[in-house]
Amino acid sequence: MNYRLVLRLTGRTLMVEAVSLLLPLAVTLLYRENPRPFIYTIAIIALVSLLLSFVPSDDRFFAREGFFSVAFIWFLMSALGALPFWFSGFFPSYVDCLFESISGFTTTGASILTAVEGLPRGILFWRSFTHWLGGMGVLVLAIALLPSLGSRTLQIMRAESPGPVVGKLVPKTSQFSKILYAMYVLLTLLEIFLLLLSGMPLFDSVVNSFATAGTGGFSVRNLSIGAYGNHTAETIITIFMLLFSLNFSLYFLIFTGKVRQALKSDELRFFGGVVLISTILITANIHRIYGTLAEAFHHAFFQVATILSTTGFSSFDFNLWPEFSRILLVLLMFCGACAGSTGGAIKCSRILVIFKVLFREIRQIIHPRTVCVVKLDGQALGESTIRSIFVFFAAYVTITFGAALMVSLDNFSFGTTLTAVIACIGNIGPGLELVGPMGNYSFFSSPSKLILSLCMLIGRLEIFPVLVLFSRSAWRRS
Amino acid sequence: MNYRLVLRLTGRTLMVEAVSLLLPLAVTLLYRENPRPFIYTIAIIALVSLLLSFVPSDDRFFAREGFFSVAFIWFLMSALGALPFWFSGFFPSYVDCLFESISGFTTTGASILTAVEGLPRGILFWRSFTHWLGGMGVLVLAIALLPSLGSRTLQIMRAESPGPVVGKLVPKTSQFSKILYAMYVLLTLLEIFLLLLSGMPLFDSVVNSFATAGTGGFSVRNLSIGAYGNHTAETIITIFMLLFSLNFSLYFLIFTGKVRQALKSDELRFFGGVVLISTILITANIHRIYGTLAEAFHHAFFQVATILSTTGFSSFDFNLWPEFSRILLVLLMFCGACAGSTGGAIKCSRILVIFKVLFREIRQIIHPRTVCVVKLDGQALGESTIRSIFVFFAAYVTITFGAALMVSLDNFSFGTTLTAVIACIGNIGPGLELVGPMGNYSFFSSPSKLILSLCMLIGRLEIFPVLVLFSRSAWRRS
Repeated sequence: MNYRLVLRLTGRTLMVEAVSLLLPLAVTLLYRENPRPFIYTIAIIALVSLLLSFVPSDDRFFAREGFFSVAFIWFLMSALGALPFWFSGFFPSYVDCLFESISGFTTTGASILTAVEGLPRGILFWRSFTHWLGGMGVLVLAIALLPSLGSRTLQIMRAESPGPVVGKLVPKTSQFSKILYAMYVLLTLLEIFLLLLSGMPLFDSVVNSFATAGTGGFSVRNLSIGAYGNHTAETIITIFMLLFSLNFSLYFLIFTGKVRQALKSDELRFFGGVVLISTILITANIHRIYGTLAEAFHHAFFQVATILSTTGFSSFDFNLWPEFSRILLVLLMFCGACAGSTGGAIKCSRILVIFKVLFREIRQIIHPRTVCVVKLDGQALGESTIRSIFVFFAAYVTITFGAALMVSLDNFSFGTTLTAVIACIGNIGPGLELVGPMGNYSFFSSPSKLILSLCMLIGRLEIFPVLVLFSRSAWRRS
Repeated sequence: MNYRLVLRLTGRTLMVEAVSLLLPLAVTLLYRENPRPFIYTIAIIALVSLLLSFVPSDDRFFAREGFFSVAFIWFLMSALGALPFWFSGFFPSYVDCLFESISGFTTTGASILTAVEGLPRGILFWRSFTHWLGGMGVLVLAIALLPSLGSRTLQIMRAESPGPVVGKLVPKTSQFSKILYAMYVLLTLLEIFLLLLSGMPLFDSVVNSFATAGTGGFSVRNLSIGAYGNHTAETIITIFMLLFSLNFSLYFLIFTGKVRQALKSDELRFFGGVVLISTILITANIHRIYGTLAEAFHHAFFQVATILSTTGFSSFDFNLWPEFSRILLVLLMFCGACAGSTGGAIKCSRILVIFKVLFREIRQIIHPRTVCVVKLDGQALGESTIRSIFVFFAAYVTITFGAALMVSLDNFSFGTTLTAVIACIGNIGPGLELVGPMGNYSFFSSPSKLILSLCMLIGRLEIFPVLVLFSRSAWRRS
């Protein structure tokens, strides 16, 4: 392991974090709040960053270093990003601050706060801004801003980007990162503008757009988006949650005029189908709770979008819905958004491939002599890609149940324990029962909070970088 | 599809069922109960069997026919095996009888009866005897008794036997079946004898031994094995549940003097490790509930054995244990017994291979140039075997959650709904909350009972035969 290079890379990424903290600092000054939590944090991070940036190192950089540094940097970035919460004095312990920070960067949106109204605006802004930063990937940003990393970047993209395949649309990764971020900024600004038009206050429009863009879900109201009682804003957010769930390569195709090719995407169609069918099923299941079918559809559509995109906002407490809708939402928590989006969980493309392979197995039993190839977007998938998808699925499920076993030492109910882990590893936020949309994670013990934080990182970084970080042999000098 | 041959094979297997029904008929006569439920059923099954046995057919028989006929025969055998329950008048509806019958043959042991004490002994005997018949596989018995099926039998063994690989110890399948059944009978007789020695009544010793041998779990007492208050009997049953969870090929090795080779089995060691670690963890977790550590260990060991073997007896209501022990038992429900045993669920060998492959993935990221081979019992596993294990795992998990979604329409709690499906597809019996050891399945709606019955068949026949039966293209004439 080339530690020196990992440390240098860490230094550069922390510089991005320090610069990002200037924005909440500005908010603090604007609202005449206490700026010290941010000033101290910026000073600490800048110092660490400067020290690490000048570590001399050679350029040996392989998959191992890529996976290791991504996991290491995400840990350190979250640990330092928790400092404003800690210095603010509004959080009970550093473990709580760390949970909130990891929940922010991983775009989970699970909170240990029992109430958010009344917190300083600067703190709330930073909380939501971590979603925005973590959604696209901080290292992708570092690559975009620091092109000197050169050819090593594909390893990092591979480790940090969600989904089984990294888009190969633009050969130069640095250029591709810039295009991604430009689209990301544009869509975020568009959402802020539309939310303002719908009558939402400026501050709320900005932070809710950050949380939507990163598919995070932190809100600045105790009742989440439902607090505004603004159906237009809810619909705008629903649509943007879905837009940020799509593979960003599709936007690239659309902007370069290849709309047809974009619409033919198997994953897009699967995602659309899941949204449509789930919304219809839930509408049918819950319509008696609401006055009209339109009202039921509105809430069903919002909740399907918020869970499938792994955002985790709520317009209504779905904990009160019938068990069918609740379990359907839990299934959507496993599925998640499209690969190459800011969303989390297993990802639609993987689920689609798993279904295709299962059907192939049946076909091959019935017609053993036919050769069946599994295709995605018209291209045959290699057996090694298929295997890695099934391995990912097995690892995801195994870690989910393993973590649930550890969290169960807190002795909360089966539903609370299991869905807390599912909601954290899928980067969603709310689960069922005590961790439902109107609940929070404050009541878990510190060890459980650390395990859940680890689940969020495992989910966000797609398992293997974190496992490599914890593997003994990765720590050996090469 | 060669329907005619499937029908002829069905006829022959039903003859085995009709003959098996003579045993409960004898019990009925012995205890001077009403024999008509059995006489009618035997007449009906014998008639259907005779009609089908003489369907003229050619001998084209491939994997397709093997998978299809196994699923078809299991359905029909269960539907007809439910008739004594139906004729007895003690069951509310035919769906309930079907559920009980499928639960018996698949060795699940989930019951819709709210109380079993007071039922005629003949009915109780038949209920437990279906476990014994289903444990080893009725078709394996048919093969052993009807050698005229000849070379086609390997396809059937493959479809009916649990586990990823069928033992290739004896080249002639018919002979191998006979050896398996001989060992099965011997172990069952030994257990009956030991239970009698421990002071259990004869009838109870016999039916409990049937339920242990098949890893079923139907009991003739409302409080299951705990009703006897007999610690010696509980320990005997614990040990036999574990013995029937082992791969029967191991006994074959032991009887032929290859004890060393048997003890080197990776799956055996993994199974032993899981039993040991789970028992220790649960003992530590529950010891405050019981007076002494020995008492806690006794119950922990019994419950670990009963769940991991997928039997589902109970010595104590584990629903009352802390959440950690409850969730650990749910994890064991996914794991299950060894391949080639009478137990159900995913099987230890598959779980072991999944873990080995996950570790290989991490190693390969860290050392991309080393070639890592996954070995089981010293032999390298082919990539196609590995793929089929991961496909099986994904199918198992997907079906579990899909079935839970359907059952959730009954609107019972998350824990009840999910663990009912897990306990049925894993052929265990009891789950958590309402379907816990002191609960039953009577409160589910008829559609849910049918879905749960289907899950039991899917679990017992290892998924693909049932999926083939439901696939449209399998029904096309070839």
